[in-house]
Amino acid sequence: MTVAKRQVRVGCEFQYTAEIETATVFQVQALGTAPATVLKQEWASQPVVDRHSYLDLYGNGCQRLTLPVGDTTVRYEALVMVPDASEEVDLDAPEVPAALLPDDVLVYTLPSRYCLPDALGDEAWRLFGDHPPGYRRVRAICDHVNSHLRFSYGSSNGTTTAADAYAAGWGVCRDFAHVAISFCRALSIPARYVFGYLPFLDVPVADEPMDFAAWMEVYLDGRWWTFDPRNNVTRKGRVLIGRGRDAVDVAMATTYGGPELRSMEVWADEA
Amino acid sequence: MTVAKRQVRVGCEFQYTAEIETATVFQVQALGTAPATVLKQEWASQPVVDRHSYLDLYGNGCQRLTLPVGDTTVRYEALVMVPDASEEVDLDAPEVPAALLPDDVLVYTLPSRYCLPDALGDEAWRLFGDHPPGYRRVRAICDHVNSHLRFSYGSSNGTTTAADAYAAGWGVCRDFAHVAISFCRALSIPARYVFGYLPFLDVPVADEPMDFAAWMEVYLDGRWWTFDPRNNVTRKGRVLIGRGRDAVDVAMATTYGGPELRSMEVWADEA
Amino acid sequence: MTVAKRQVRVGCEFQYTAEIETATVFQVQALGTAPATVLKQEWASQPVVDRHSYLDLYGNGCQRLTLPVGDTTVRYEALVMVPDASEEVDLDAPEVPAALLPDDVLVYTLPSRYCLPDALGDEAWRLFGDHPPGYRRVRAICDHVNSHLRFSYGSSNGTTTAADAYAAGWGVCRDFAHVAISFCRALSIPARYVFGYLPFLDVPVADEPMDFAAWMEVYLDGRWWTFDPRNNVTRKGRVLIGRGRDAVDVAMATTYGGPELRSMEVWADEA
Amino acid sequence: MTVAKRQVRVGCEFQYTAEIETATVFQVQALGTAPATVLKQEWASQPVVDRHSYLDLYGNGCQRLTLPVGDTTVRYEALVMVPDASEEVDLDAPEVPAALLPDDVLVYTLPSRYCLPDALGDEAWRLFGDHPPGYRRVRAICDHVNSHLRFSYGSSNGTTTAADAYAAGWGVCRDFAHVAISFCRALSIPARYVFGYLPFLDVPVADEPMDFAAWMEVYLDGRWWTFDPRNNVTRKGRVLIGRGRDAVDVAMATTYGGPELRSMEVWADEA
Repeated sequence: MTVAKRQVRVGCEFQYTAEIETATVFQVQALGTAPATVLKQEWASQPVVDRHSYLDLYGNGCQRLTLPVGDTTVRYEALVMVPDASEEVDLDAPEVPAALLPDDVLVYTLPSRYCLPDALGDEAWRLFGDHPPGYRRVRAICDHVNSHLRFSYGSSNGTTTAADAYAAGWGVCRDFAHVAISFCRALSIPARYVFGYLPFLDVPVADEPMDFAAWMEVYLDGRWWTFDPRNNVTRKGRVLIGRGRDAVDVAMATTYGGPELRSMEVWADEA
Repeated sequence: MTVAKRQVRVGCEFQYTAEIETATVFQVQALGTAPATVLKQEWASQPVVDRHSYLDLYGNGCQRLTLPVGDTTVRYEALVMVPDASEEVDLDAPEVPAALLPDDVLVYTLPSRYCLPDALGDEAWRLFGDHPPGYRRVRAICDHVNSHLRFSYGSSNGTTTAADAYAAGWGVCRDFAHVAISFCRALSIPARYVFGYLPFLDVPVADEPMDFAAWMEVYLDGRWWTFDPRNNVTRKGRVLIGRGRDAVDVAMATTYGGPELRSMEVWADEA
Repeated sequence: MTVAKRQVRVGCEFQYTAEIETATVFQVQALGTAPATVLKQEWASQPVVDRHSYLDLYGNGCQRLTLPVGDTTVRYEALVMVPDASEEVDLDAPEVPAALLPDDVLVYTLPSRYCLPDALGDEAWRLFGDHPPGYRRVRAICDHVNSHLRFSYGSSNGTTTAADAYAAGWGVCRDFAHVAISFCRALSIPARYVFGYLPFLDVPVADEPMDFAAWMEVYLDGRWWTFDPRNNVTRKGRVLIGRGRDAVDVAMATTYGGPELRSMEVWADEA
Repeated sequence: MTVAKRQVRVGCEFQYTAEIETATVFQVQALGTAPATVLKQEWASQPVVDRHSYLDLYGNGCQRLTLPVGDTTVRYEALVMVPDASEEVDLDAPEVPAALLPDDVLVYTLPSRYCLPDALGDEAWRLFGDHPPGYRRVRAICDHVNSHLRFSYGSSNGTTTAADAYAAGWGVCRDFAHVAISFCRALSIPARYVFGYLPFLDVPVADEPMDFAAWMEVYLDGRWWTFDPRNNVTRKGRVLIGRGRDAVDVAMATTYGGPELRSMEVWADEA
């Protein structure tokens, strides 16, 4: 039962300029749930500011601090031990009939800010309604989303819903996730949004600069399964930050005011 | 400290025809929190079906049952004791700076399925940005929403966002609430959606048939205050069913499948 | 999959005399979780007092009210639909190794006010340490407790721990549960206390007057199983009020002050 | 509003020898709640083992791992920024009448494994029943406990209740806390157990080796206040690990099996 392990170093740095004191919440800290083991983590800011943590409704860790007037750099880094194995796959995992879903899973069948099973419902049923239910149907959704949307930085913004992205045919990883989640929910398959770090372990390094990643988990056969409609391959080394209904619930930074984000850097590498 | 009391009888009846067994969740049960005292409640269905209750993420009671094939009538009724007094008002209640908001209140500053502080943010700041902060600003929001939207049954549907309703200039009580909530959140004032029964105690009975009601609670001066942008007057006898980010979180009925809702009746009267 | 149903009427009435206004919490309301369906419930008090409900740490419903000075009668009654079947039994259900227990189950392996796996640990290991692990071992614990303790009203009081009851050899149903729970926990088998109504369906009516009942649930094979060390037979019609670590967590009435309880009546009958 | 800060280094190391694989839960990690800011933390074990975190019922962080057969060293260290100020004091803070206590505070008036307001109730009322209610009464309780109990390592063990310690007249810091908490609860004053690191900032270093510390928080005037019946002086630099009803809820290490704890070291120093 012993699984080989690898270590990844993940982190991020934000540089802000604020004209007023600005309340800010960060969600960038590695989640300490299995199968990841967080060995070390460190927060630093210049200037030094108070920070405290709390958990949101979904159990995600949130870090709250107030940016002072002027320039502030906030930096987070963690060393995380992960299994040297990709996420599990079971092509035969069945869907769970709605009447048998656990109570606390039902929320992931409902619409949310960015995931619109209502607006995309007809399309979902047109494309996947006749597909035999189960893991393979979710994979068909991922295949479709992956081929239908073209990845393009800056193609979406904070008000882009799954319906918007699907109509436009462009998106970033969070849009891929929002669209696929919307399709799943339209078919009464519970799906939730996952936000995290995704290092390039045993896969070619992408061209674009490293960024946070978004993917989804889908409830089949009594448990949650990882699907990644953006990359559409299984991967090693996912370091989760949080889960929620969509990107609203796991936002890397929420600022109460309009500080300028001068730069942001994200890293996720084998240690 | 003794407050005079009155008793109200609230309830609802749904008639469904289902072609397949249909998992269903109801949120119509009176919340037993102060200042209401639920004296009696009764569920009945024809045919008799199993039902169980659970609490969602927000602590709202949900009732879960499976509609059998064919016709089903589901009926709920409660006798509730309420104060013979309208909700409290404090025109001088100040807003709480974002940095000082309690952690668990922050979620009510974020966008949600129907409440779009992002999309309506410019309008919010244009109209209310210069208004002195506090209770009176929220009242100005309610006044504006109440005069800007015209009430009209059937003017909105399950995909109508606050931005849609605001652009159209029409809505039902939930749209009034969604728009006012969006404006509050755009100004970093926490606002949440409330769903319940609203009898006509000491006010003229409305023309339209009795229905569920939606209003909002706004966080000022360290507590939540009731505002009702639809009626825009204080009222007695509110019987809450639940609270959430918006109407997604407190839906009277969620069905997994497409049963026909042949009729729905709601009542809320002095007992 | 349709199970035959029966209806039971459960309830209780307390008569208090208070010399000062006395804050009181009741835990006597039927839990609305499967497989029970609460059809109707009613609270009444003489004089009429405000009451509100909340959930404790364990998700149990609590009813909070203030007894006025003088005499007060508080009455609760519910009509509940239950399966016409006894709790499930699986003699082969295995114990779950501690390392594989779900995180949220671990709390039920720890000592609590009345359940003392530490104090009764040697006895637990002496008696059951060599017993093959699994459902049958829990049944052996129940058999031992049921034969070792003699049932006797008034034999224990609010400070009687499992160790006290075990040493004395006497107890009421809550002591039977506390002792059996302590033995389970001493063996790292999660066990929790259950409090509820237990009608006499298809079993001979007991001699003693109807009272609230206490039993336990034990975590085996990935789920909770009902065991009743007091009656030591399977039963139909259990109507749960709540669950917890022990009787502290599900107390029928907690009073902040010393009102006189002049009488208490409990009922649980087929409707 | 800027408060001067200091940095403390806290941590611990456990050395175990296990004959079988042993599931273990640690509660030694610094809580990230205000006013502490956790800057850096690191876990290490020899050999390297998987570990994951979860939150218990009280929101305390728990770290779960399985000790392999043989020798294992587990080490935790954090760098924490704390205010250069002692906990607040308000001699005039009033008690909150039971009827007005928030629902979620009530649990801290009940008995628990080690805190026995029932058993110590008569003594509580005899000593403090006539004392004017409020902060000063809690201080009188601390004064009494501090003078009545003599501190002595090894004077108590895992089954020593507040009643045991009080009768014996000996205890370690957790017994001081348990007794004082029991007295508070007997008077319907909510009190909870706090476990953490307590460096010697601006106070003489104690003779005994550094250890984890236990104190209590008491609910007065609508918030929780820190009291330390063991040291009975205000202190700077408390780094909380967790809170609960008593030491059961915040145990530095819970092992499911009987590994030998060969050594334990704790540190808490200015960085």
